Amino acid sequence: MAVKKKVTLGIDIGGTNTAYGFVDQEGTIYHQGSIPTRADQPVEQFFERLFTLVRRQLQQASSELECVGIGVGAPNGNYYRGTIENPPNLGWQDVNVVEMVRKHLDLPTVLTNDANAAALGEMKFGAARGMKHFIEITLGTGLGSGVVVDGKVVYGHDGFAGEIGHVIVERNGRLCGCGRRGCLETYASATGIKRTVFELLGNSNKPSRLRNMTYEQLTAKDIYQAAKAGDPIAREAFEFTGRVLGEALANSVAYLSPEAIILFGGLTAAGDFIFRPTRKYLEENLLSVYRGTVRVIPSLLPEGGAAVLGAAALIWNELNSGRK
Amino acid sequence: MAVKKKVTLGIDIGGTNTAYGFVDQEGTIYHQGSIPTRADQPVEQFFERLFTLVRRQLQQASSELECVGIGVGAPNGNYYRGTIENPPNLGWQDVNVVEMVRKHLDLPTVLTNDANAAALGEMKFGAARGMKHFIEITLGTGLGSGVVVDGKVVYGHDGFAGEIGHVIVERNGRLCGCGRRGCLETYASATGIKRTVFELLGNSNKPSRLRNMTYEQLTAKDIYQAAKAGDPIAREAFEFTGRVLGEALANSVAYLSPEAIILFGGLTAAGDFIFRPTRKYLEENLLSVYRGTVRVIPSLLPEGGAAVLGAAALIWNELNSGRK
Repeated sequence: MAVKKKVTLGIDIGGTNTAYGFVDQEGTIYHQGSIPTRADQPVEQFFERLFTLVRRQLQQASSELECVGIGVGAPNGNYYRGTIENPPNLGWQDVNVVEMVRKHLDLPTVLTNDANAAALGEMKFGAARGMKHFIEITLGTGLGSGVVVDGKVVYGHDGFAGEIGHVIVERNGRLCGCGRRGCLETYASATGIKRTVFELLGNSNKPSRLRNMTYEQLTAKDIYQAAKAGDPIAREAFEFTGRVLGEALANSVAYLSPEAIILFGGLTAAGDFIFRPTRKYLEENLLSVYRGTVRVIPSLLPEGGAAVLGAAALIWNELNSGRK
Repeated sequence: MAVKKKVTLGIDIGGTNTAYGFVDQEGTIYHQGSIPTRADQPVEQFFERLFTLVRRQLQQASSELECVGIGVGAPNGNYYRGTIENPPNLGWQDVNVVEMVRKHLDLPTVLTNDANAAALGEMKFGAARGMKHFIEITLGTGLGSGVVVDGKVVYGHDGFAGEIGHVIVERNGRLCGCGRRGCLETYASATGIKRTVFELLGNSNKPSRLRNMTYEQLTAKDIYQAAKAGDPIAREAFEFTGRVLGEALANSVAYLSPEAIILFGGLTAAGDFIFRPTRKYLEENLLSVYRGTVRVIPSLLPEGGAAVLGAAALIWNELNSGRK
């Protein structure tokens, strides 16, 4: 009888879709799949649908794979309590995810938020392999962050540490979804750069192809393509976004002195348009003792599998350290 | 023969004076003393003078005390390398402190900066006993900070993490000793509040007893006494200082989610004048998930012995964890 491959199940619960897959210690993903989350329906139905599929996959692969644990990434996921609390874009209120998962598949199970999962995925499978001190920034619709100190994600005393997207960078700045003003994610994110474009369109008289698009239409990808074509407003928007991000990251270095800051998520597809100003303003604003010590690098997680790899890394981490 | 009391030697190297003392696991200090640092003279002479005294003390107490290790706190002290690098207010350039100490007294020796030592002292002997996640802020001439995550000081990848005093809180703000502008310590420190008073004196026409003092004369204590007597400029200066500090600490919570922020150092003698606005603006600026979860409390380290206790806690910590 052949030896079975040990894998963990990584689950990424998103507002629209939930992805899952089995992942071995080397980062190979087996039987990846996804279902609509349908957060308007009761959460019990969601787990029922998800695990019907998962169990079927496991059964079909039972001769080759042995699942040894489950990692879950979800918005507002709390590592200590195993719960999702008031999740944004999910209508479920508070859910004990770990308990629900174990009803369906009784294996060691850990939960964290999606940004922390991305950091763990990066450390095990991506650009942060071998690093002990780094910050993972996810530039998506908002700005998520995972802070790693001494090889471990910082959860803080209540499990909610690492919300760099909600550091206030501008007193009385832009209104944020959190109800406060001037949070970093209102500037440095896919939504943030769109807001910047609209401010710049209003503020200047420069010609721009972006003047033909509505706020609802415009995406970060449009801004990137305009920037590539030389559009002055789009280029200025990237410069400004990188400046706000670089300045904020310079402050984060004063807290944590990481060896690298890894940028991940949709906005990083713009490459140098976002990396160049971010690096420049980070470096310009660093305390001298940190200058030249912090790299700003792109994620090496594959676009499609990053969230599943992150969730799987979370539980691999626990199993390998003997915590689960 | 009686059993000897195990103690560590705590040394705090300051710009003007260097304090030392032997400290047991309960925080009792034995044979505390201090010498002028005289940083204009060669560093070898400094250690010669210091250890002549220390060895004499140890000899005299040899029937009751057994010294098992040495902890040193010093400006810019690097935990990983055991060196002081470009220390502010010390003319010594780079010094390998651990090496020098062990030439005089060959015991397990650890170095860190004074602010990290204060955090370790607080955790072992003071207000942070039993805490795993907290931030220690020292409001002295500048603003020092020690960040504790999971019971350990965060040193970052190069040993220089935890410089919250050099977080930029005001773009193009006040010129800082570090050469940049708008650092937190140019507002929230004994020097910072003095600068605020002078700005306010220039900005308003309010009567104030502080109008009779020169910049060189004025101390944080004068401002505190004026505030107690109802002086409007002094009161406004404390309100402003607490606002800048509270806002900055709200951001630090988004990174670290500590259970407490402990304020230590000269400026905290002003009590409610500094604690009340700091707490108020911290709370007002917190992301909702953190509201009501973070206490801002005064240090419980004794004024005279805090630095020695911190340095001693540093080495106790290493010895007890088996790292030394």
